[in-house]
Amino acid sequence: MSVKDEIRKLGEQARAAAHQLAVLTTAQKNQCLHAMADGILKDADIIKEANAQDLGAGRAAGLSAAMLDRLALNDKRIEAMAAGLRDVAALPDPVGRVLDSRTRPNGLSLRKVAVPIGVIAFIYESRPNVTADAAGLCLKAGNAVILRGGKEAIQSNRAIARSLLDSGTRAGLPANAVQLVQTTDREAVRELAQATGLVDVIIPRGGEALIRAVAENARVPVIKHYKGVCHVFVDCDADFDMAERIVINAKCQRPGVCNAMETLLVDEAVAKTFLPRIASALLARKVELRGDEATRKLVSAAKAATEADWSTEYGDLIINIRVVPGVDAGIVHINRYGSQHSDAIVTRNQATADRFLREVDSATVYHNASTRFTDGGEFGMGAEVGISTDKIGARGPMGLEELTTYKWIIEGTGQVRE
Amino acid sequence: MSVKDEIRKLGEQARAAAHQLAVLTTAQKNQCLHAMADGILKDADIIKEANAQDLGAGRAAGLSAAMLDRLALNDKRIEAMAAGLRDVAALPDPVGRVLDSRTRPNGLSLRKVAVPIGVIAFIYESRPNVTADAAGLCLKAGNAVILRGGKEAIQSNRAIARSLLDSGTRAGLPANAVQLVQTTDREAVRELAQATGLVDVIIPRGGEALIRAVAENARVPVIKHYKGVCHVFVDCDADFDMAERIVINAKCQRPGVCNAMETLLVDEAVAKTFLPRIASALLARKVELRGDEATRKLVSAAKAATEADWSTEYGDLIINIRVVPGVDAGIVHINRYGSQHSDAIVTRNQATADRFLREVDSATVYHNASTRFTDGGEFGMGAEVGISTDKIGARGPMGLEELTTYKWIIEGTGQVRE
Repeated sequence: MSVKDEIRKLGEQARAAAHQLAVLTTAQKNQCLHAMADGILKDADIIKEANAQDLGAGRAAGLSAAMLDRLALNDKRIEAMAAGLRDVAALPDPVGRVLDSRTRPNGLSLRKVAVPIGVIAFIYESRPNVTADAAGLCLKAGNAVILRGGKEAIQSNRAIARSLLDSGTRAGLPANAVQLVQTTDREAVRELAQATGLVDVIIPRGGEALIRAVAENARVPVIKHYKGVCHVFVDCDADFDMAERIVINAKCQRPGVCNAMETLLVDEAVAKTFLPRIASALLARKVELRGDEATRKLVSAAKAATEADWSTEYGDLIINIRVVPGVDAGIVHINRYGSQHSDAIVTRNQATADRFLREVDSATVYHNASTRFTDGGEFGMGAEVGISTDKIGARGPMGLEELTTYKWIIEGTGQVRE
Repeated sequence: MSVKDEIRKLGEQARAAAHQLAVLTTAQKNQCLHAMADGILKDADIIKEANAQDLGAGRAAGLSAAMLDRLALNDKRIEAMAAGLRDVAALPDPVGRVLDSRTRPNGLSLRKVAVPIGVIAFIYESRPNVTADAAGLCLKAGNAVILRGGKEAIQSNRAIARSLLDSGTRAGLPANAVQLVQTTDREAVRELAQATGLVDVIIPRGGEALIRAVAENARVPVIKHYKGVCHVFVDCDADFDMAERIVINAKCQRPGVCNAMETLLVDEAVAKTFLPRIASALLARKVELRGDEATRKLVSAAKAATEADWSTEYGDLIINIRVVPGVDAGIVHINRYGSQHSDAIVTRNQATADRFLREVDSATVYHNASTRFTDGGEFGMGAEVGISTDKIGARGPMGLEELTTYKWIIEGTGQVRE
């Protein structure tokens, strides 16, 4: 079967499943999720065996240690997958929420009600546990999902998807509610992104190159985040102890993730006092410093930052530092170089904070807190499928509610339009 | 200047304007809207003169009478534009609504707040009054707009856009908040649809060909509706008087619009009694009937419907009729052939209605009312920029709220992530 035909078949099957999923009760969906969790544990040996094949192939192909670590499944990670499915079962059902209701003068009763999106294509890279996480979240929100993981994890993903579907369908899951793209041909991603009428939204998660490849070929809506170029602006009215704590946390606590900070902006009024102090703290944590001219005058250890650096997501212990004339210049810098992900101000001045929170055009804006909190779990969503830096469909962490759309339900007594 | 350069320039100017617009107060925006309404009336003669040029060129080019009518502006239509701007000023500001709020166990306070989308590209066809309507709605929602109207209305659109901007900026509207694409080159639409980073969403309004052209070239998010293939299902438990009233209204009251019905589905249990009756009523209104075999046995006047007919938007006094075994088959038909726009059931049986309302996967679903109510005004939104049959971004009528996105605002007291 050609790649095009495989995707078309998956899409048609998913569409049929979506209609069945949309009418499952919360109890029915939760029963499936628990059965899938049980199934993952029961099939742990089969999954580990498949994973061993992927790891062997990965080693032979010379994958990096970090890549192999992301790929590896052990009992603990398998148990975490099962626990994740049970956690999703415990979350409130996002379907059926009444988002708005009104009665019109002609007596028509309108309700805007949350409903599943339908068919979600989910593209991800090497972590096979994403297969179970994404399937669970999509199912709870009433959607059929077509999963496309990294080719290095294909055997693991097949084993996990087969387990989920087998145990799920025995508990009442519609056939084809969870499907894995079997081919590892890259063409499959392109076909999914162009499957209008079959795929309602495509969610790519991974590196910028993958996401760009999806976005540039897409004819179906995409919800994505390219990168996290996050900022902390330290205002002249900042509490320096707090500012140091937040900057160190935002940069160093887990530098590889998208909500970590890349650029520190410092109000020139306090640069002379704050910069040497924060530079020592960063250097003590082995952070490479790149600064503008004003920074380098105060911090000799800083290399010169290039124009490209200001919009680079390092994902590493490297930080850009820039001295700006005040909050307005800080906002302009962030709106120009940032990725509209997560940006923070540290200040005791509420008026300055309000200005920053209003004018920075990002998915999440913080006052006196670390950017590292941008996360579905930290936001109380329970889980997330990713973080959107788009403005259409969802913005910021995407949990179950963000995997739904809505319909208008109108009840009348025979009304016709005059 | 090349088309690409013109669009890039408009986009960059719009982006700058968007940042200014996002922080205007409601009073400032309303002041601009009233000034723009005054300006339209003051500039009526200039606008009519420009319109006369378009009409002259249109007649010379052999435009149809219907097209010329859509293009024509007179005092009444100009007054309606001004009144439309004042109506938008009177609507509640959609920006700043708190959509959700929560405090986390670590003391972080989260608010999900409605904010403008940013830059909206609005593509439309021959009606020049859309220029003022779209500008007003985008402005009230805090967005910069790039307008691209039909080439046959270019002089009228230029005059209207110039008037809006002149009077608006004198009242405090940021420069470039409202911009019209000056070239009539079709390439401009393609460039707008690919202007990632400059255009946040593109909204095409018009015929299916225009919308497909935008959607197929787009790299920025699109909110669209292709067509309105709407249905009325008459259940075995329908009140026949009500069913006739609704069918006649949905088909005949204004057949050219997207929420008019194209296909009537009749439960076979009542086909024998209801079909001859509704056929006479439709024939009396000069509606052409196209039916399946079962229909044609009962209604000799019906021609045979082709497979393509079931998914055709006639926009005319033509109706498809099909006899189906019951509500389930009706739902399957609608989900297969419909355009997910507006579909209605007529029944006295609430359980049957609930099933239909839940399972029909359309933006608006009706029980005992005409599909003709799908409209921003009828929904109490005050005005609309169009109706979306997409599921991402907005679904159904798009009013001011649908021209906003949201951001998460997080206030802390120095929290860092453990």
